[in-house]
Amino acid sequence: MEYVAAPARLSTADANFEHDFAQRLHWSADTDAAIEQRVADILADVQQRGDAAVLEYTARFDGLQADSMAALELTKQELKAAFDSLPAAEREALESAARRVRSYHEAQKKANGESWSYRDEDGTLLGQKVTPLDRVGIYVPGGKAAYPSSVLMNAIPAHVAGVQDIIMVVPTPQGQKNPLVLAAAYVSGVHRAFTVGGAQAVAALAYGTATVPKVDKITGPGNAYVASAKKRVFGIVGIDMIAGPSEILVLADGTTPPDWVAMDLFSQAEHDELAQSILLCPDAAYLDAVQAAIDRLLPEMPRKAIIAKSLSDRGALILTRDMEEACAISNRIAPEHLEVSSRDPHRWEPLLRHAGAIFLGAYTSESLGDYCAGPNHVLPTSGTARFSSPLGVYDFQKRSSIIEVSEAGAQILGKTAAVLAYGEGLQGHARAAEMRLK
Amino acid sequence: MEYVAAPARLSTADANFEHDFAQRLHWSADTDAAIEQRVADILADVQQRGDAAVLEYTARFDGLQADSMAALELTKQELKAAFDSLPAAEREALESAARRVRSYHEAQKKANGESWSYRDEDGTLLGQKVTPLDRVGIYVPGGKAAYPSSVLMNAIPAHVAGVQDIIMVVPTPQGQKNPLVLAAAYVSGVHRAFTVGGAQAVAALAYGTATVPKVDKITGPGNAYVASAKKRVFGIVGIDMIAGPSEILVLADGTTPPDWVAMDLFSQAEHDELAQSILLCPDAAYLDAVQAAIDRLLPEMPRKAIIAKSLSDRGALILTRDMEEACAISNRIAPEHLEVSSRDPHRWEPLLRHAGAIFLGAYTSESLGDYCAGPNHVLPTSGTARFSSPLGVYDFQKRSSIIEVSEAGAQILGKTAAVLAYGEGLQGHARAAEMRLK
Repeated sequence: MEYVAAPARLSTADANFEHDFAQRLHWSADTDAAIEQRVADILADVQQRGDAAVLEYTARFDGLQADSMAALELTKQELKAAFDSLPAAEREALESAARRVRSYHEAQKKANGESWSYRDEDGTLLGQKVTPLDRVGIYVPGGKAAYPSSVLMNAIPAHVAGVQDIIMVVPTPQGQKNPLVLAAAYVSGVHRAFTVGGAQAVAALAYGTATVPKVDKITGPGNAYVASAKKRVFGIVGIDMIAGPSEILVLADGTTPPDWVAMDLFSQAEHDELAQSILLCPDAAYLDAVQAAIDRLLPEMPRKAIIAKSLSDRGALILTRDMEEACAISNRIAPEHLEVSSRDPHRWEPLLRHAGAIFLGAYTSESLGDYCAGPNHVLPTSGTARFSSPLGVYDFQKRSSIIEVSEAGAQILGKTAAVLAYGEGLQGHARAAEMRLK
Repeated sequence: MEYVAAPARLSTADANFEHDFAQRLHWSADTDAAIEQRVADILADVQQRGDAAVLEYTARFDGLQADSMAALELTKQELKAAFDSLPAAEREALESAARRVRSYHEAQKKANGESWSYRDEDGTLLGQKVTPLDRVGIYVPGGKAAYPSSVLMNAIPAHVAGVQDIIMVVPTPQGQKNPLVLAAAYVSGVHRAFTVGGAQAVAALAYGTATVPKVDKITGPGNAYVASAKKRVFGIVGIDMIAGPSEILVLADGTTPPDWVAMDLFSQAEHDELAQSILLCPDAAYLDAVQAAIDRLLPEMPRKAIIAKSLSDRGALILTRDMEEACAISNRIAPEHLEVSSRDPHRWEPLLRHAGAIFLGAYTSESLGDYCAGPNHVLPTSGTARFSSPLGVYDFQKRSSIIEVSEAGAQILGKTAAVLAYGEGLQGHARAAEMRLK
């Protein structure tokens, strides 16, 4: 069978551009009501029956039978054995990626994750103490989309933050374990791991069971059941963002070899038919050249069926008036991955306000960032980069404000506080401040 | 009518302590299913009918009739007029509080909210760019719990972060406007304000209407409808935490005047019958003295009915073996407000890992922090300080990773990425990396 990858050709100069553009971008995060109800039932059941319920759902959904939850725990020895069993090239690649991801997140912690304080002119001490979370749960998808790199990207920032207890859950349908996933857990400092998945795994982490310890936060991607479960336990535990389909946006000035850009678009499209790959460029001839490269390279790709469908249904090659307009459109999209494939990427970077990660220059393919450049590959999707950030050390830390008012400071602050408290009708607040006045 | 405030007397040495302690702490954040359905309907209606639906709900729930949403916008002139109309003491208190809150959040931005980058040995540039959100919505409760200080605490960090468009919504039941709330909006740099509230206001901000602009994030406290609506639009927009009842925990070594501590417990209890006030102390005689102060001071309090019910139903005076044990129990509670009412607060502070805000020393009454010390009074409740932080400048910023791989760097990183990508079965990713190899 022959596949055709035909991304939409749009131009900002077309009268219909706004309409066509909106249609291409449309994606709804609405969850199926049936899934929501099913998930609510699973959560309630695990909350009540604990291990027994997790075991039943694991047998039913993953075809994995076990007598006890303890039998579903992966020992440290098993994780190490998986690592030792890998070919040398894979062992080295995992270790090298882990090392770079660790250095980047250490720099991140140093830059933005330290406690601070100061004294004001009255001697009042003000600041914030930054502390790691005690215990976190990391959800790692299993089955067809088992990504060892996701283990590194979730566990290493938690480890760098100082989390003492990192619990991984990963479904192993029919008991099939992915050795790269287990090896990644070994390399990245996961403390305990269980072969459970789905809403039942989220529930076990959120409520705790006799065997699975209750965590403070759950991070990591998953299917619609996992996403719905995370959203539902939010508040009982912290969660990271809810991920939608993956996206790439390439801003090109026409100086990068078209084959490179075509392959970068493929690397997003191959994830999933709903993934979105968009190219913005002010040069129509370059868009033609990239389409020609797509046509030429597609037949070589093992995942060509997925790529063709993703590009044809959701992809777009968009002609813009100039690079400035391309940057403005990129800000409207707020893409997860943004490649600035330009000879002069630092000229455009300051114009780019909303994106999960910005890849500068022709050599910075998104795939380097996905695996080993160092920054996190867990990024805000579906336009949520307008208000959220890559997963980071800060997701595994929290802050406590510190206030120490001196006797002298209390004389000044107490009067202000009392006026405002009386204004709000809270006399207890006012009196508490006034009692400290001389 | 005579009111009695009888907090539970517990001792960690009692055999029943764990049971009694768990029962006192119990509070369920479960939302009523009927409220959830009602909120889902309101959201869907506003999403579809926009302004018309908001106007209808505002008429129905707030008893406020208007011909158009434009008529519900508060002009800048109206905010300024409210400020000008206040007594001088209130004007000065608002301005002084705003000034201190602003300085604190400026220090916070400087300490933790700046972009950073570095180059590694291969010349690869790695970092993160920190940018403000474009537009945020601030929900301010109206009616009986209208708190002008909440306007300052939400709007000022957004302003310091650099948000260009701060939209306030505040319900005004029967059209009654609170001049202190309007004045606080004027002082803290709110850009636009609408007199709407409830789930319909959250919907208007999340989806946008013809009149109310769509925002990127919604912060601020509200009732069960507002909380349910925020949770439901999470993902379409960002939200801050969902607030539960307010809490204070006082760790006392017995050196603070008992009246001060009693009043601090009142200042939490007076918020709401569900509010929780707990005192931990290793000195039984001191607990008796605080109870005596409670009995003596209660009759003077205008909100004595609420205080008595809150303390009797949810309050506790807990005798501990020593201060170390008191700190350990405090960590289990992870309180919103934590007063270290000790002669030597810096001895205990390092032992305290989980709390929204820590108030050190006898002069630092929580009420000073609520209004004007500088730190934010929007804090994680119900134990969520285990994984979340005070509202801050960071809530109004987001980060984008920056990666620029040099040609030399791509030769090294490309090989690692290709090995891992082939291991995950993602050939497009691998090929994109390999194409950059010489």
